Amino acid sequence: MADLTELMKNEVFMAFASYATIVLSKMMFMSTATAFYRLTRKVFANPEDCSSFGKGENAKKYLRTDERVERVRRAHLNDLENIVPFLGIGLLYSLSGPDLSTAILHFRLFVGARIYHTIAYLTPLPQPNRGLAFFLGYGVTLSMAYRLLKSRLYL
Amino acid sequence: MADLTELMKNEVFMAFASYATIVLSKMMFMSTATAFYRLTRKVFANPEDCSSFGKGENAKKYLRTDERVERVRRAHLNDLENIVPFLGIGLLYSLSGPDLSTAILHFRLFVGARIYHTIAYLTPLPQPNRGLAFFLGYGVTLSMAYRLLKSRLYL
Amino acid sequence: MADLTELMKNEVFMAFASYATIVLSKMMFMSTATAFYRLTRKVFANPEDCSSFGKGENAKKYLRTDERVERVRRAHLNDLENIVPFLGIGLLYSLSGPDLSTAILHFRLFVGARIYHTIAYLTPLPQPNRGLAFFLGYGVTLSMAYRLLKSRLYL
Repeated sequence: MADLTELMKNEVFMAFASYATIVLSKMMFMSTATAFYRLTRKVFANPEDCSSFGKGENAKKYLRTDERVERVRRAHLNDLENIVPFLGIGLLYSLSGPDLSTAILHFRLFVGARIYHTIAYLTPLPQPNRGLAFFLGYGVTLSMAYRLLKSRLYL
Repeated sequence: MADLTELMKNEVFMAFASYATIVLSKMMFMSTATAFYRLTRKVFANPEDCSSFGKGENAKKYLRTDERVERVRRAHLNDLENIVPFLGIGLLYSLSGPDLSTAILHFRLFVGARIYHTIAYLTPLPQPNRGLAFFLGYGVTLSMAYRLLKSRLYL
Repeated sequence: MADLTELMKNEVFMAFASYATIVLSKMMFMSTATAFYRLTRKVFANPEDCSSFGKGENAKKYLRTDERVERVRRAHLNDLENIVPFLGIGLLYSLSGPDLSTAILHFRLFVGARIYHTIAYLTPLPQPNRGLAFFLGYGVTLSMAYRLLKSRLYL
């Protein structure tokens, strides 16, 4: 147990743990947003989901796609595609002994960029708001990957 | 190496490793289920996948969507959306020194909820079976995130 | 901090860190490929993305799906579905004290299989190129999961 207590004393690792938890919680919020739009707009993907609204043919009209729901789902998928590399690369980067302030700058920029990306996607804000948010988060992850591979490559 | 041996002596971390491996293996099973339905129902997304069934126009009829295949794909995507936060938050939670029995309760509830979610999605069972399974897994992950941020927030 | 320095001295863990970073960077490249095809083929999912190409009805013609873009998106989703289990299981496997050369063989086969999978999907190469690449990566992850559960099961 002693070693784990040590791990949680490591400031970079603790900062990573905090920011990763925040950005994952934000991603989980997308599920709630999808459920909210599905229920308020009565748009479902599965027959069993709308059986309380009607039976048989009457229920089938709820099995459709809706631009608002699809938009939330695209934002959710984009989150997954970007947060998974951040988690993997960020965890390894945190353990590679980076400078604390540099590491925190990376984490803050990434989390801020992803939150702004979600706002820009769901509002929606005109481009290039969403595009810039996407590329900021993308660049931060690549920067961590670059530092990791440069200092610790072992193939 | 000594420190890693220590890490694997940590009971919470070992329990997390076991449950995470089980739930990830379950998620991988979804790929096999998709392949099974695609092959038995002859429903493909790529022209090169069905070239053995026919050439030219004859092959195009297999490039379609099928409700059964789409259902497995939705279940798979829902797994991804929920298991990724569990992996990230659960790993950090395991390292934050929680009570062993509390931690194991979290892991068991999550893995049970996701397995039941898959059964409810693929059978399909009437709602609210799938909905309750989803919210149970969701709540377990949020509970770990809450404990993690409460005890270790470092921004 | 001492323990983390130890962690980065562990050769299996360092090898995992390197291969995980490479395969995640490859996955991130898929976002760039999607953006490239969307821009060169003028195929968009959101009205705000193509507002610079025209206004009102004129812009709507760019809101469509394109086989080339959908192909990249399927390859990206397949990456996510397979790289997430590799990251989770591979991290825990690396910490379970495996033999160095066995571990590196696993990592190399997985990364090679996923890179070949992407080439086979985007070219596209005739089947079973993509299928074999998929099953090789799948089998490598299952092999790590099996070794992990066999030696360290703790439920």
